[in-house]
Amino acid sequence: MHHVVILGGGFGGLYAAQNLGGTGVRVTVVDKRNFHLFQPLLYQVATGGLSPGDIASPLRAVLNRYRNITVLQAEATDLDPANRRLLLRDGALDYDTLIVATGVSHHYFGHEGWAPHAPGLKTIEDALEIRRRIFIAFEAAEREERDEVRRAWMNFLIVGGGPSGVELAGAIAELAHTTLRRDFRRNDPAQAKITLLEGSGRILPGFPPALSQKAAQRLAWMGVTVRTGTLVTEIDEAGVTVRHGGALGGGSDEERLSSKMVTWAAGVKASPISDVIARVTGAKQDSAGRIVVKPDMTLPGHPELFVVGDMAHYEQLDGQTLPGLAPAAMQQGRYAAQAILRRQSGKSGRKFRYRHKGNLAVIGRNAAVGELGRLQLSGFAAWLIWLFVHISYLIEFDNKVLVLVQWAWNYVTRKRGARLITGADPFPLVAPRDEESADGAALPETQSKAG
Amino acid sequence: MHHVVILGGGFGGLYAAQNLGGTGVRVTVVDKRNFHLFQPLLYQVATGGLSPGDIASPLRAVLNRYRNITVLQAEATDLDPANRRLLLRDGALDYDTLIVATGVSHHYFGHEGWAPHAPGLKTIEDALEIRRRIFIAFEAAEREERDEVRRAWMNFLIVGGGPSGVELAGAIAELAHTTLRRDFRRNDPAQAKITLLEGSGRILPGFPPALSQKAAQRLAWMGVTVRTGTLVTEIDEAGVTVRHGGALGGGSDEERLSSKMVTWAAGVKASPISDVIARVTGAKQDSAGRIVVKPDMTLPGHPELFVVGDMAHYEQLDGQTLPGLAPAAMQQGRYAAQAILRRQSGKSGRKFRYRHKGNLAVIGRNAAVGELGRLQLSGFAAWLIWLFVHISYLIEFDNKVLVLVQWAWNYVTRKRGARLITGADPFPLVAPRDEESADGAALPETQSKAG
Repeated sequence: MHHVVILGGGFGGLYAAQNLGGTGVRVTVVDKRNFHLFQPLLYQVATGGLSPGDIASPLRAVLNRYRNITVLQAEATDLDPANRRLLLRDGALDYDTLIVATGVSHHYFGHEGWAPHAPGLKTIEDALEIRRRIFIAFEAAEREERDEVRRAWMNFLIVGGGPSGVELAGAIAELAHTTLRRDFRRNDPAQAKITLLEGSGRILPGFPPALSQKAAQRLAWMGVTVRTGTLVTEIDEAGVTVRHGGALGGGSDEERLSSKMVTWAAGVKASPISDVIARVTGAKQDSAGRIVVKPDMTLPGHPELFVVGDMAHYEQLDGQTLPGLAPAAMQQGRYAAQAILRRQSGKSGRKFRYRHKGNLAVIGRNAAVGELGRLQLSGFAAWLIWLFVHISYLIEFDNKVLVLVQWAWNYVTRKRGARLITGADPFPLVAPRDEESADGAALPETQSKAG
Repeated sequence: MHHVVILGGGFGGLYAAQNLGGTGVRVTVVDKRNFHLFQPLLYQVATGGLSPGDIASPLRAVLNRYRNITVLQAEATDLDPANRRLLLRDGALDYDTLIVATGVSHHYFGHEGWAPHAPGLKTIEDALEIRRRIFIAFEAAEREERDEVRRAWMNFLIVGGGPSGVELAGAIAELAHTTLRRDFRRNDPAQAKITLLEGSGRILPGFPPALSQKAAQRLAWMGVTVRTGTLVTEIDEAGVTVRHGGALGGGSDEERLSSKMVTWAAGVKASPISDVIARVTGAKQDSAGRIVVKPDMTLPGHPELFVVGDMAHYEQLDGQTLPGLAPAAMQQGRYAAQAILRRQSGKSGRKFRYRHKGNLAVIGRNAAVGELGRLQLSGFAAWLIWLFVHISYLIEFDNKVLVLVQWAWNYVTRKRGARLITGADPFPLVAPRDEESADGAALPETQSKAG
């Protein structure tokens, strides 16, 4: 039986698998995690609105109704295309056709040293780490006596004004200004300063300029400082150095922004296996490491090798590359599955044709921007569509109707019930305090004896 | 203003705080975590049924309506009763009255080396680690070719037949035999062997013998092997050594049980601050480190020092100590709060009187045992009461009505949607494979090329 191996259980891989489910081929889905992650809602986990389980579905549960599909939790390390063999960290897997759909991870443009100071948001662990840092910042600010240090704790910097940066900035603003309003006694969370740094001339550069402007206005109204044309040149544990003019190449005056909570939403690159694929097949990569694929999503000289989703660099007829959106990955995954089935039944292949359904970015409660065909939407209408689209996906994959209930609940109560500080050291507030606060020193007045 | 410091935001501390909320004293609640954890449902997180956010409530959110209460995330390290000062890892806090309610943690009876091989279940991190191990065991068994190793992966051992051990054993049995039924292709999860080891003569020794027997029967029906009179003498990475006769002192023949998934539910001891309290106040401790308190829950010679909840060793008039149950901790917390308020208004103190409302242990879907007054219940009725009681607490503290919906959903669909393998190394399947499976060796037939 023809054996299709699908590497990666994201949108591309999962759609490919579902379209091969119940057909005459044997399928093995390989992922190093045991769940499909609904990445578009990861920012909700990072800000305490949803729990990891709400936006992740066990791959086995999603696929268990297809008896021809096997799920394998494993990590691919190498590829032997001549022998059609995928090498794993602990074994190997022979295939007749391979679909690679491992997506992208965040990318610091050569500044990997920035990673510990400015975590990106691509995995559940990333989201929990950012959540941890956000809520530790509020706890630390509540305890801090020195004004400038407290301000640094309350300075939230988000690097990158794409959809991820915008939604994170909006969510942190709502958290500080609404959810936590009454939770602290000394430090007013409403004093938190949330700054969105974007190197280019406008946020949401993938959207029409009018929507970028709407989004910027809305963010400003929510209390987010939007700084475009601002390029980050350094990130360390105490903050960020920016250069004005940014990507526009304008000025060169540097500025230092003190912050203890920096999040990275500025760049992605193809996951590591892309380099392996390029090396062993001779396929080209673009500057982000994406594999340049043929019009049928396969690699030159390797009709049995598909690359789909965010990791594929696919040029449409008009020269535009496909956007890194879930619907694009899903369409490619389905296309690859159908192409394999057509071959199996002796039919000739068709070229992939992308149907752009639209693009949405959520800013906060009630607010989003979106283009749907020629329609440009913003505000509540766009938000409703955003909500509908995302809930639909969640229900399609895993019947997660409860997330809708959870959201409705959060919406009414403005609660974020999952704002837990968890992890190896749940109480790391000690380290940042320096020598001047001696051990055993009494806490400030409101916390010391006043009777 | 009289300043009450409450150390610990568990059931005892939270009830004390709520009873002091809106009164004429100033209150500071100190906890090293930023949330109250609903421990009775931790086993649901460990088995993928609920997410951490479902059973944890931010302390600030629970208490933010009381303007006289301040929440402080901090860790207490020492106590200076003469100066009424609580020393923190990074500061100090002066009090007029101190309520200590830091509870218990698990205890390996001097065998601390067992901890890495048999994690206990007391914190969110514990639950996520056990969840991780459970689901890795199923993944590993699916991949394992050698029968005896696969059997070791599918051997789940729970040490300790108290309520925690019983609910964990029941939940793992349901997981293996129902939820995961169709999720694997090579290894049948229904073959999982779940064994509950209890040193004494019966499980649930805190319950009437008839209910212990009912629980044992139900567990057996669910596929759990219950072994009483079986004492654990050694735990290492490959399994457990037990001695028959156990606490009864009967036999002495040792037996080796291979297992890669051992959970510890056998013993608790008072949290570390209890030793500090005993040292600086001269208070007595029992064998589990609990502080022996006076009839008014204070320490001898220290009327300003209350110890409540699981950490208090309190002898009732009949000589019985209070059970380590949430309702007991709540009653003690409320009592301490009321005692402080009575003193403030010049009234004399009352002795604490515990009202035993009952005792419940859940075994699984539809099944629990419980004693309520003189009534002994088992089966569906007991389960309904268990569900009602637990949901009531969740709603009382944090309005978590959604957990009820989640449960109803899980109940109907038998789903456990939060079965994610997360953490630092989400894919640790490589290590356990030993030399005989050489690198690059092809996987077994079902996963390799088959034409």
